[in-house]
Formats: sequence, structure tokens, C-alpha cells
Amino acid sequence: MSFSGVFPYLVSPVDQAGEIKVKVLSDLVEHLVGSGVHGLTPLGSTGEFAYLSRDQRLEVVETVVAANRRRVPVVAGVASTTVRDAVEQTEKMVDLGVDGILAILEAYFPISDEGVEHYFRSIASAAKGRPVVLYTNPQFQRSDLSLPVIERLSMVDNIGYIKDASTNTGRLLSIIERTRGRMEVFAASAHIPAAVMMIGGVGWMAGPACIVPKQSLALYGAARAGDWTKAMELQRPLWRVNEIFAKYSIAACIKAALELQGFDVGDPLPPQAPLNESARAEVAEVLRSVGAL
Amino acid sequence: MSFSGVFPYLVSPVDQAGEIKVKVLSDLVEHLVGSGVHGLTPLGSTGEFAYLSRDQRLEVVETVVAANRRRVPVVAGVASTTVRDAVEQTEKMVDLGVDGILAILEAYFPISDEGVEHYFRSIASAAKGRPVVLYTNPQFQRSDLSLPVIERLSMVDNIGYIKDASTNTGRLLSIIERTRGRMEVFAASAHIPAAVMMIGGVGWMAGPACIVPKQSLALYGAARAGDWTKAMELQRPLWRVNEIFAKYSIAACIKAALELQGFDVGDPLPPQAPLNESARAEVAEVLRSVGAL
Amino acid sequence: MSFSGVFPYLVSPVDQAGEIKVKVLSDLVEHLVGSGVHGLTPLGSTGEFAYLSRDQRLEVVETVVAANRRRVPVVAGVASTTVRDAVEQTEKMVDLGVDGILAILEAYFPISDEGVEHYFRSIASAAKGRPVVLYTNPQFQRSDLSLPVIERLSMVDNIGYIKDASTNTGRLLSIIERTRGRMEVFAASAHIPAAVMMIGGVGWMAGPACIVPKQSLALYGAARAGDWTKAMELQRPLWRVNEIFAKYSIAACIKAALELQGFDVGDPLPPQAPLNESARAEVAEVLRSVGAL
Amino acid sequence: MSFSGVFPYLVSPVDQAGEIKVKVLSDLVEHLVGSGVHGLTPLGSTGEFAYLSRDQRLEVVETVVAANRRRVPVVAGVASTTVRDAVEQTEKMVDLGVDGILAILEAYFPISDEGVEHYFRSIASAAKGRPVVLYTNPQFQRSDLSLPVIERLSMVDNIGYIKDASTNTGRLLSIIERTRGRMEVFAASAHIPAAVMMIGGVGWMAGPACIVPKQSLALYGAARAGDWTKAMELQRPLWRVNEIFAKYSIAACIKAALELQGFDVGDPLPPQAPLNESARAEVAEVLRSVGAL
Repeated sequence: MSFSGVFPYLVSPVDQAGEIKVKVLSDLVEHLVGSGVHGLTPLGSTGEFAYLSRDQRLEVVETVVAANRRRVPVVAGVASTTVRDAVEQTEKMVDLGVDGILAILEAYFPISDEGVEHYFRSIASAAKGRPVVLYTNPQFQRSDLSLPVIERLSMVDNIGYIKDASTNTGRLLSIIERTRGRMEVFAASAHIPAAVMMIGGVGWMAGPACIVPKQSLALYGAARAGDWTKAMELQRPLWRVNEIFAKYSIAACIKAALELQGFDVGDPLPPQAPLNESARAEVAEVLRSVGAL
Repeated sequence: MSFSGVFPYLVSPVDQAGEIKVKVLSDLVEHLVGSGVHGLTPLGSTGEFAYLSRDQRLEVVETVVAANRRRVPVVAGVASTTVRDAVEQTEKMVDLGVDGILAILEAYFPISDEGVEHYFRSIASAAKGRPVVLYTNPQFQRSDLSLPVIERLSMVDNIGYIKDASTNTGRLLSIIERTRGRMEVFAASAHIPAAVMMIGGVGWMAGPACIVPKQSLALYGAARAGDWTKAMELQRPLWRVNEIFAKYSIAACIKAALELQGFDVGDPLPPQAPLNESARAEVAEVLRSVGAL
Repeated sequence: MSFSGVFPYLVSPVDQAGEIKVKVLSDLVEHLVGSGVHGLTPLGSTGEFAYLSRDQRLEVVETVVAANRRRVPVVAGVASTTVRDAVEQTEKMVDLGVDGILAILEAYFPISDEGVEHYFRSIASAAKGRPVVLYTNPQFQRSDLSLPVIERLSMVDNIGYIKDASTNTGRLLSIIERTRGRMEVFAASAHIPAAVMMIGGVGWMAGPACIVPKQSLALYGAARAGDWTKAMELQRPLWRVNEIFAKYSIAACIKAALELQGFDVGDPLPPQAPLNESARAEVAEVLRSVGAL
Repeated sequence: MSFSGVFPYLVSPVDQAGEIKVKVLSDLVEHLVGSGVHGLTPLGSTGEFAYLSRDQRLEVVETVVAANRRRVPVVAGVASTTVRDAVEQTEKMVDLGVDGILAILEAYFPISDEGVEHYFRSIASAAKGRPVVLYTNPQFQRSDLSLPVIERLSMVDNIGYIKDASTNTGRLLSIIERTRGRMEVFAASAHIPAAVMMIGGVGWMAGPACIVPKQSLALYGAARAGDWTKAMELQRPLWRVNEIFAKYSIAACIKAALELQGFDVGDPLPPQAPLNESARAEVAEVLRSVGAL
């Protein structure tokens, strides 16, 4: 199975009692798959993985897998500070029927390159042949993947993708040049999707795709066809969505946008705060400007 | 109940299968209480709270409470990204019989001051009157407590202490001056204990006290007696212990030191690495230089 | 006068006695102009402006202006911590016959947005109608230009360009979208030139262009023609030049490369160190791989 | 000559035309020497060295030396990015009759430990036997002195002091322990003077001493006498002066305070902004609270 295209990061709708809102999440999956997205990624940063218990994480993925009905690949986030826990999570995800793993290393103390490599290799091994996407986000995670570690990990059979959420687009080209034929790059919301596609990316895994799926697909189509003039015409107005996403707290922003679009996903988990009125108005204005409201 | 003096941060001995080494942890508690320490703090940074599952955390605290047999106060760490989970952890700790809570906020996305305040107030409320120690460590946690938030939290009845693990000793004096009569300050290993005592601190909660309990107590005694000449005489050689603690990964360093002292606490949890041979030799040399080996 | 295309950042060759090597610098100018570059930028970061005295800076620019013989625009760096000094420098540069100013704010204490704006407006005013290029490099300068300040400065008649040396390519698109029709963007060496051209950039001002002028021009030509397939074919191997530039200290790297190419530019100014042998070999290998040695 | 005690960092009063206000600076020197300070340090951070031209720097020092009339040691700042310029500055300062050099490394690109060491050794050599004080301020300077470099530099005959302006007081103890008998430590305003004296410091070089000289001297006297109870009684209220100094831009804050005390020192150099009204009122209130207004 190979991954490419638009993979929205799904939010995790949780009610006041801590229960996953299964119906809301299923509706969102139906909406996105119906829109034509190429895959689904529950439990990324946007999915607030860092705020969910083990059981909540599993229920989110179970819900997504069920609602998806094997129509598109589901790539679920696995995040931990320890190898043991990451392996257990991966095994559970595989049992739930996911098609790939988005692998995230949470760190408290600094970890050596050897430790980082050991962590991701262990997940790959536990994924039983399913493709693994390395996910590195230096802004929020206290660890990073160095180029040499990425190069070594690209030698692992089923580590075939990386999503780098730095703002450094040049780093993506360095990764692409070093891992040609072994690893593909997905853009994050901090990168310009059209630019990443032009330098050789295969798509994007990002929160904004959750609220502008059609616009994302049109952009992807133009880029895939090599029509860069049209891609940039579509990209320019869409960039404002990425800008508000960077300006406001990610989960709060996407959840507010989805509420505006009629999905009752609720607030981010406390002590995170929901967007205030003026931020909500700004999000609405941006959505309207791109035809998403 | 009021806290002051030397509160070692306990390591969490875990075997290869992920089981808490109950006997080893009990022996360590017996050794430290026998040495005369004023309290015990399981599940601090040194205790690798960030690497333990919910069940492992509870078993560590249960073991410490049992081995302590009510001789000294046990102040257990509670750390989470969400209010709901922190409250549940606190309730469990209270049920296990702890005497106080060391409250830690883990963050993934940035949290507003209001969110930070809400989080700690919720723990204080769940602690049912037991004293709460605020713990802030800007080096490892992605959140910090601003002076205004600390000042407001000091108004909460059972938030009576703070342990600030920045390296900024001047900040401690700013806290002391703003919260006089309502909040007491414990030093962390990044501060010079003698200096913190002189400016008004009441003791220290720190990993190094786990491996040099007698030396820590002598220093505390001299400081408490206002004998600053003697305190500095004891402090100077001891500072090397804090230096190696800062140089090497904390849990790896203290676990290596305890192994050298005969406690079979094992390695830090992977992908953390144990100290290598030369680091281990350096730790041994420092321990010997202060009479702790 | 309008600027676009490839503007190499020139090194500043200085001998052991502190004298500018006028002949070497003139030869380099002749070589670059002969290669077809679109402009020359003395006294950028690569030109070690931060290491030169007032007199040395003026002599560098005087030399470049003379050797250029009005063939291409010369855009000279002005950098200071104070408004008064920046204005004086600008006036001197104008007297020397430069065609534009590359404006840099050095800061010791933090500066408010109002102060930043005041600084750049003062330079623009002293430039007497000549175009000003804002230059911001958050990695080395202790100040940065916020998007609102850039937007306000784009309203100044002769502030028509910006060169942003962050690694954040998305920020360039945010600038382009906010200042359309008033300000043009030049890429820095930390960005992928082909990608910046595609999102609307007009060229690049960068150190690497000093050592690979022909390759840079070919890439620029392809991008300008909208032939993105060819642009990326040329871009891929060239990216290694930007990578070594980021890996090693900038001035040391470019000076070593120019020495290898036969320009006796000497070492970076002490206490900066020249590249060691293995770094020099790596630079040589990269130059060879792109046909520049 | 040996240095210890209270060395105020002097502001540099400059009028709108860029001229040093010689009379005002001389009056300030007279006032401070008359108050009993142990030395004078023109051209520290507070003295805005980073904002002054070569000629302005020399005139500041010339004025201070003349007004001082050999009553206390004058330790003048030398700051540069290059070895050559630092040596020239040092020679000029020696010619002007200073008693010691406060040596500062400004950096644009990162400098290796060898380069850092070379820079400071060159200044020491040019100081012709006069004592050199190393000054490191990681907050504002883009370079830092590692412990091994400090240890090696302490072997140089006339490098006898260090002023570390980090906020990390533990680092001072590490320096003291490593350089015993060869190097003495002065506190900066970010440290608690009483605490630094207790761990072995010999005084402080700091901006606040410029506005509270008598209070600083009383505190120094108590500390020197080993009366730590009294020292802390004096220290507690005084700490607020250091707090406002950290809160507001340093030069703006001290210049505002001196204006309030009747010294017409003017504003910090543009684009730095003077304090606004509310900040000025806060400074006045703090000065009143310690009897300095």
C-alpha cells in the first residue's frame, strides 16, 4: 500500500464527561471521505493525542476505522516517551485495522540519536509490515530527528514516509535528496503545499485539510498535473488558512472552524481554552474567503 | 502538616518486563528514612514520571507509602496535560495515603495563564486539604508559571509550596518576596541549596539528595542554624554532585549512582540510555570525593 | 531602477594588516559581472559587515562601485544599532555611487516595533530615492521584522524589497500576499530558490551565488521562463551548495570556496577561524559535483 | 591593583546631536565616588557601548578618568567582533589611563572555544599588566564563555576577574570552585548580590548600583562583615531595583531613574525608546521604597 495526496489530521471530539463523540467523529469521516480525501490521520497534533488517555485514543481510532469502511487508508498516530509503550500502542492499532502508523516520539529528557533510532525501529517492527510515517515537530515535541537518523531509518523496509512539521522547507529538500527511492515526504501545515509538491513531496498531512478538503484536493490535483500556475492561483488564497492555524492554538482553531461548519466537535480539552469571539470571527472570515463557509 | 528540609526525589526502579522493583524501592526508602531525611517525593523528574504508565505510577507511590510507615511525609508527583486526568491522579494518590501533592503541568500546545491557574487550582481542590507543592521546570516542561500566576495561586489555602527548577535563583527571591506568609520555596538541584536557604528557602526537593542524604542533612542543619560559614564549607564539595547531575541525563545519573551504592535500581527506561563507562567512573569519583562511596 | 535576478553577496577580502585587498575584490567583481549576474551586494552577512570598521566598509563599497563600472546595480549593506549612525552610513554609500541600500538593524537590547520602523524609515529617507532592501536574519541579528512592521514599511515609497533570511519559506508567502504591488521578495540561501521563485519571488541575494554564478543564472533563467521541471533539475544538485553554506560558518565557507576557485580572498577575520582541511575537502567535493571547480 | 566591592555601571549621557554630555557624566562620577563606591565601570551594557561610535566611547572614558581624579579604579569596557579592533580599543583605553579592562566579545557568526580564548588573551596582552575582567552576558551577546575556556583563561596572569550576567547563580559557584586563587567573581544585576557574596563573590558590577549607591554599599558592608542576617534585611527591599531593571530595557530604566534623581542624562540612543509614563512612575515608586528618591 502506498500513500500520497491529502490526508487530513482529524480532530478528536470529546464531550464534557470525557467520552468520545462517536457520532460526530463518524460524520466528519463520512464528510471527508465523501469529499475525496486520500487518507485519514487520527491522533496527530491536531487530534490532541497528547491530551487523550490510552482508552480514548483507541476509541478514536476504532471509530475512524469503522466509519471509513476501508475506503481510504487510515494512518493512526502512536506517541510515547518509551519504547515499550509505543510498541504496545502500535500493536493495538494494528489489531484495530489501521493501514499505517504515524510515529511520534515524545521526550522529557534529551534522547541520543541512537535512542531515537531505536524508538522508531521498534515501532516499525511492531507495525507488521504496515507503512510507518515518521512525524517530527520540533515546535511541540522535545526531540527532533537529525538528517543522519532520518537517512538510517529510511533503510528500514516499512519506514517509507516522513512528515516534518518544522517551518524549514529547505530541510524537506535535504531529506528528499538523501532518501530518494526509499522515503517520501508529506508537507505539514507550516509548509506551502504547492512548494513542497514542486520539490518532490507526495502530499500533505495537516489539520487545515480537515476544514478545506475540497480546496485542498483541487490544489493537489493541479500540483499533481504539474500545472504550477493554477496550483499557485489556488494556493495564494488558501495560505490564509495555514496562517490562522499557526496564529491560534491548533486544536482550538480547527475545532472552532468545524463548529462553524456544522460539526459539533466541542472544545479542546481543558486547560486548553476554546477560541474567543474575535478569533472565532477571524476564522469565519477566512473560511468564507476560500468558500469553506 | 508543614514541610521543610531535605526531600529526596526518588528514582523509579523498573525491571526489563516493566515491573516496579518493589523490594529495591522499599530498601531505598528504608535507607533514606533511616538516614534522617525529612520527606520523600516519588514521581518527580528524577522519578521518570514522564516514562511511567498510570499503573506503574500508582505502584511506585503505593510502595513508598508502605515502606515509609508514616515516618516522614510522602509528597507524590501528579503530572498531566489535562485537568480531568490530573484530578483523577490526585484522587488516587490521596486514596493511597500520600501527605501532599507535587503538582506538575505537562503541555503540548501553549497554555494561557488562566489555563495554568485552572489546572493547579483543580489539583489543589482534589487534594482535599493536603498541601500542594507547585513544581515548575522550564527546561523539560513546555509550560512555565509566571510570577502573577504564582502570586494568585499562593492565595489558595492548600497551595503552600513551590519548587522552581529554573537555574534562576533571583526568581526564587522574587517569589519569596511576593508570597511571604502564604508560600514557601524549596530549592531544586539547579540552585545552590545554601544560597536558597539564606534568601529564605525552607529546604530542597531534589534528585541528588537521594545519593548524598547524610551530606544533605548536614548542610541543611548548618543552614537552619544560621551557621553560613559551615554551610558553605559543606556546600562547596557537594556542589560537584549537582554539577554531574546537570551534566548527565538526570535519571540515568542517579540510577547509576545508586547502583554504585548497592541499590539494584536498574537502568532508565528506554529509549533513554544508561550512563556509559566513563560517565559512570566520573560519578563514582564524585561520590567518593564527598564520602558517599 | 528595479532589481531582480541573481545578486551575489560579495565577500570582503582583508589582508593580515587589515587592508582591503582591492585587486582581489575587483577581480571577483569582474568575474561575477562577466558571468552575467544581475547585481552585486557588498556588506551582507557573507561580506562580514559585522567585522569591518567604518573605513573598511567604505573601501569595500568604493572598490565594488569602481570595478563594476555601472554595468549592474550595486546594493550596499548598511548596518548599525543606532538611527544616527545608519543615516550617516547611508549618506556615505549614496556619495560613493551605490544604486540601492540593503538595510540591516543590529540590536543589543530588544527594540519595539516602533523603534524598528523608525530605524528603517530613516535609512529610506537618507537613501534619497534609491531603492531600499530590508534585510532580516533572525539567526544572527538580535532583532526581527514582524509582518505588521513589514506591511507598514512597504508603504514607504523607496522601500521596495525584502530579503528574509529565516528558514521559514511560508513566511515569504505571507509577506508576498500582504505587500503585493509594493514590495518584492528576494530569497536568502536558507530558502530553496526555485520554490521562492514559484511562489512569487524575484530572485535571490545570497552568498552561494558568489561561487556558483553560472549555475545560479541557469536556474534563475529556467524559473523565470516558468519551466519548473528544468528549474528543479538544476536546483537539486545545487542545493548541496546551500547545505554546506548552512553547515559551516558562512564567511569561512565562501572564502574557502573562492580560494579553491583561484581568488586569493584570504581568511575570515579573527577570531573567526578558517575552515579546517576536512571541511575544505568537502567544499571542494561539492563544488566539483556542480561543475564549479 | 585588586578590585572588590561596588562598581556601578555608568550610563553614557549623549545629547541629541550625538555629543557626550561631559558635565553631566562628570557630576555623576563625582556623586558616585563621593558616595563611596569602590570603582567605576564605563561602557558596560548599561553604558550602551553597543550604541556608541569609537570616538564617543573614548570620550566617555576620558571624561570618567578625568572626573575620578585617581580616587577609585576605573575599569573600562572594550567590546568588538574582531581581535584587531579589540586590541586597538584596549591600547587606547590604556593610554587614557584606565586601571582595568572589562572585556566583552561581540559575535555575529558562532565562534569556537579557541577563537573565544584567542580574543580574550589578545586583550589581556594589550592591557599591559592591567587587570582584565571577563564579561559574559548570554542574554544580549551572541557568544558565551564555557567553563573550560574560563578555566584556561584564569591561567593568564592579568585575567583575574569575571562578571557573569547569566541568571544562573549556580554557574558562579562552578566558576569559583574551578578558578580558586586565580580568578574572582563579580555579581551582575541578575544575581542576588548577598547570595553571590556568600558563595565567595567579591562584589558586583551592575547598573542598579548607579542609582542606589549608598544602599549598595550598606549591603556590601554587611556581607563583607559576614553579617548575613543584616545583609538579607538590606537585600530584600533592594531586590525590587533589580527586578525593574530586568523588566524594562536596561539603559532606558537607569537613565530614567537618574533623571528622576536630578542628573540630566537624557534618553537612551534611538531607536531605543525612553520609558513611558507608567514605567517612569513605577521606577519612581521603587526608588522611593528604598529611600533613593
